[in-house]
Amino acid sequence: MDEPKDTKTRGWIRKVTPEMVPPSLNDNTADVDRLMKGIRKALPQNEILFDFPLAREIPTILGKYDYQVAAVLFEDHDRLHLSGVLPGAADAPLYGLAVDLGSSTVVVRLLNLSTRERVDETSFHNPQIEIGLDILTRIHYAAQEGGLQKLQSLVRDRLNQEVHTLCRKHTIEMMTIAGMAVAGNTTMTHLFLGLDPYWLCREPYIPALNSPPIIKAHELALDILPGAPVLVFPNVGSYFGGDLIAGILASGMNQQEEVSLLVDVGTNAEVVIGNSDWLMACAGAAGPALEGGVANMGMMAGPGVIDKVSIDPDTHEFHTRTIADQDPIGICGSGLIDLVAHLFLSGMIDMRGKFVRRTCGDLLREKDGITELVVVGPEKSGTGKLLTLAQTDIDGLVRSKAAMFTILTTITNTVGIPLSKIRHFFIAGTFGSYIDPRSAITIGMIPDLPLETYVPLGNTSLQGATQGLLSAEARKNIFLIRDQITYLELNVNQEFMNFFSAAKFIPHTDKSIFPSVRP
Amino acid sequence: MDEPKDTKTRGWIRKVTPEMVPPSLNDNTADVDRLMKGIRKALPQNEILFDFPLAREIPTILGKYDYQVAAVLFEDHDRLHLSGVLPGAADAPLYGLAVDLGSSTVVVRLLNLSTRERVDETSFHNPQIEIGLDILTRIHYAAQEGGLQKLQSLVRDRLNQEVHTLCRKHTIEMMTIAGMAVAGNTTMTHLFLGLDPYWLCREPYIPALNSPPIIKAHELALDILPGAPVLVFPNVGSYFGGDLIAGILASGMNQQEEVSLLVDVGTNAEVVIGNSDWLMACAGAAGPALEGGVANMGMMAGPGVIDKVSIDPDTHEFHTRTIADQDPIGICGSGLIDLVAHLFLSGMIDMRGKFVRRTCGDLLREKDGITELVVVGPEKSGTGKLLTLAQTDIDGLVRSKAAMFTILTTITNTVGIPLSKIRHFFIAGTFGSYIDPRSAITIGMIPDLPLETYVPLGNTSLQGATQGLLSAEARKNIFLIRDQITYLELNVNQEFMNFFSAAKFIPHTDKSIFPSVRP
Repeated sequence: MDEPKDTKTRGWIRKVTPEMVPPSLNDNTADVDRLMKGIRKALPQNEILFDFPLAREIPTILGKYDYQVAAVLFEDHDRLHLSGVLPGAADAPLYGLAVDLGSSTVVVRLLNLSTRERVDETSFHNPQIEIGLDILTRIHYAAQEGGLQKLQSLVRDRLNQEVHTLCRKHTIEMMTIAGMAVAGNTTMTHLFLGLDPYWLCREPYIPALNSPPIIKAHELALDILPGAPVLVFPNVGSYFGGDLIAGILASGMNQQEEVSLLVDVGTNAEVVIGNSDWLMACAGAAGPALEGGVANMGMMAGPGVIDKVSIDPDTHEFHTRTIADQDPIGICGSGLIDLVAHLFLSGMIDMRGKFVRRTCGDLLREKDGITELVVVGPEKSGTGKLLTLAQTDIDGLVRSKAAMFTILTTITNTVGIPLSKIRHFFIAGTFGSYIDPRSAITIGMIPDLPLETYVPLGNTSLQGATQGLLSAEARKNIFLIRDQITYLELNVNQEFMNFFSAAKFIPHTDKSIFPSVRP
Repeated sequence: MDEPKDTKTRGWIRKVTPEMVPPSLNDNTADVDRLMKGIRKALPQNEILFDFPLAREIPTILGKYDYQVAAVLFEDHDRLHLSGVLPGAADAPLYGLAVDLGSSTVVVRLLNLSTRERVDETSFHNPQIEIGLDILTRIHYAAQEGGLQKLQSLVRDRLNQEVHTLCRKHTIEMMTIAGMAVAGNTTMTHLFLGLDPYWLCREPYIPALNSPPIIKAHELALDILPGAPVLVFPNVGSYFGGDLIAGILASGMNQQEEVSLLVDVGTNAEVVIGNSDWLMACAGAAGPALEGGVANMGMMAGPGVIDKVSIDPDTHEFHTRTIADQDPIGICGSGLIDLVAHLFLSGMIDMRGKFVRRTCGDLLREKDGITELVVVGPEKSGTGKLLTLAQTDIDGLVRSKAAMFTILTTITNTVGIPLSKIRHFFIAGTFGSYIDPRSAITIGMIPDLPLETYVPLGNTSLQGATQGLLSAEARKNIFLIRDQITYLELNVNQEFMNFFSAAKFIPHTDKSIFPSVRP
């Protein structure tokens, strides 16, 4: 699913080895003009454009390698642009980088542009976290003197460091990295590009830029071929970024006749509905609960973090699975959804999400006036302390899942498509892949559709970036998607509040719309 | 003649004032995208391209001027490029600079791009003269550590200084200078662009670059609108530069059915012959004599320099005219040609250019074993000293005029066009304008055609640059001219030497080809 398997898909970054005879008294064409002539001979009917500074380097390279060179080119707006000239070696591959620019994690995939194969993949925590874990803090920091530059250089320097490491590891010349595609949300994109994010979080919520042109690597001080094109996925608005465009691209929903839904579950719930004819998008705050970000025992996925839970309906015994099979130290979002779903199924919480004292028994305790459920006792815990779930944690999750379901109800109502008509319900994002749809249906976070409707896609941001980097067709699609999307502003009116109130029950006040959930 | 009078000629640099409504919750399009939309509304059916760094500035400018801005655009390769965004004021004009980048003098013309009118014109000695008067010295200097950068910055800094002065003088914002066109010979162009000129004077004599793309002003550190396009006239080869292309453009010879000749007289004699169907060019060393560069009393044109001479055939009295009517201090090229022509007509020199002792009488004297003619006595001289013309000076001029005539004979022979079929004989260059064609014919430097055939054009480099700056059609023509030109390598073979030997007489060994010259 990750790489376009159709090797016939035409790339937009390529290399040609122009035939050139070294100059002589009989043919003293200028160096740059000689190279252009050679390229045009190899790629007839193409005009070759180039940025002037390259002209200063070409004669040196031609002389040094005795006119045995390869020209690196890319397509943009139906024109070929020369991005660099490399020493001979017709068979040496070109490389490219696909980047998922997450606010917490940045994933970098190194690809061989010639074979389209993945060479390596690596990830790192977004170093902007040292400025602030959440996006708003970073936006505020950007307004300080030098703040924007600091945020930009943090992520760029770390990315460059990763590029160096990858090059060393695979014995690759940095100059052979001839392209990059970057997908991130609107704020991450702004910070990556050094664009002022000030108005992203302030009325009227306007981005500085939605559709970046192709940017040359040197304009962003990236340590790859200086003239390499950097494809930055466009945003649709402050709350709907390039990562989602990449998601739509990766899902292929915009090329299917049947209507699909795409959901990215996170602090913001981002939802797209549509098909090859139309796309409507909507985003709303879901709160950090779905990612396990705020619960007592909540944390991001990592070794020892519980990502799956079941409860024996008879014995009420907890079965937990932890990442890397280590002693549990916390719970991540998918684990939390499982846990709450099973607490409901086993009668330990009621429809309102409140602990049922009778069924929970000894597992309940009070701390600072808040009721908590002991999930892991100190003897089994990786921290040596109790792992507990507070009533407030459940309340937070219920609000979040209610927000998600309300957004789904609102957007499907707006377009007048009954949920039963949804062919695929794509779940985007690495985090979303871990969610058990059965549990998510049980708590009423997503609609009660046949389980096969749900398709976890993994890191769609990275997949979309990969496709955009490798395929001219995909690149065109990105801009078609952007032009096709209608963005639905969530209007928090009485109707929305009514939907939300009904969705704050588990699974819902109207049990008939969740027939498969039987506690 | 200087400005294209047809105001219908379409420009390629322009300004539009896009209509934009400031963003609101109902229309929170991103700033850059809003501007692009506004421009596309004003210029429908046009795609607008822009360089990424501009995106960082646009939101600030839009905010500062409340979305009342003007977009500056230029055409290149059939696409519109955004070069900058200026504060409102729909009626404020855009300016441009046409530059004649001479090796001794740089001329800068400031133009109003909206009205196409010349606002001002100024010139300065090329500061590279401090490195070396002749081009070869500069090429050698460029090979030294930091030499090329020094040469480039010398002329750039001086040009920037001139821009500042012009802006102050006419109360013009530098950011409203939205374009520049530069014509110079191949070496001057290389040094201006920071391109290594090493191979220009070494076999196989290859330029680094013949056809520069449009360069952005900031890429050359020019103090005008940073995104302004700089049109640098292409070269045809090491010895045939953009100044000549500008000359052809200014003469219009490439748009006429009749065959014309264009000659630029200087240290190099550059000749073009052709019409709207074909163009052939040729260049050869003529030596500095034609410019008055080496004669005893020779100097560049300036106050007190003799630029016109006649000799009373009976009394042998000299009548001299000096620039600014000051006492004579030397003689420039056109004066020298006059002087030698009249010496010949009055029988003071013979066909070989040798002094005739009998006719010269007391005016002759010997100095360091060389015979000299006293042209101006100490009592009339502006220097208080004798101004003399040495036999060696005449010998030099005769060699130079012979070279020029030989090149003319060679190129017309090559294309098989008899000189009588030449409709116009254009003389390019400021220096050329001062030459009296009658005298030049007398010494056998140019063919004996009816005087009305000779058309002095003045500074064609500057005129061509002006046209290229103002007109899209002219810009297109530049590249048509470049593609049309066949460059004839001068082959110094036996035939050439025979032509040359015959031309070393005044006016020629074959008097029948100079019927109008009667000593």
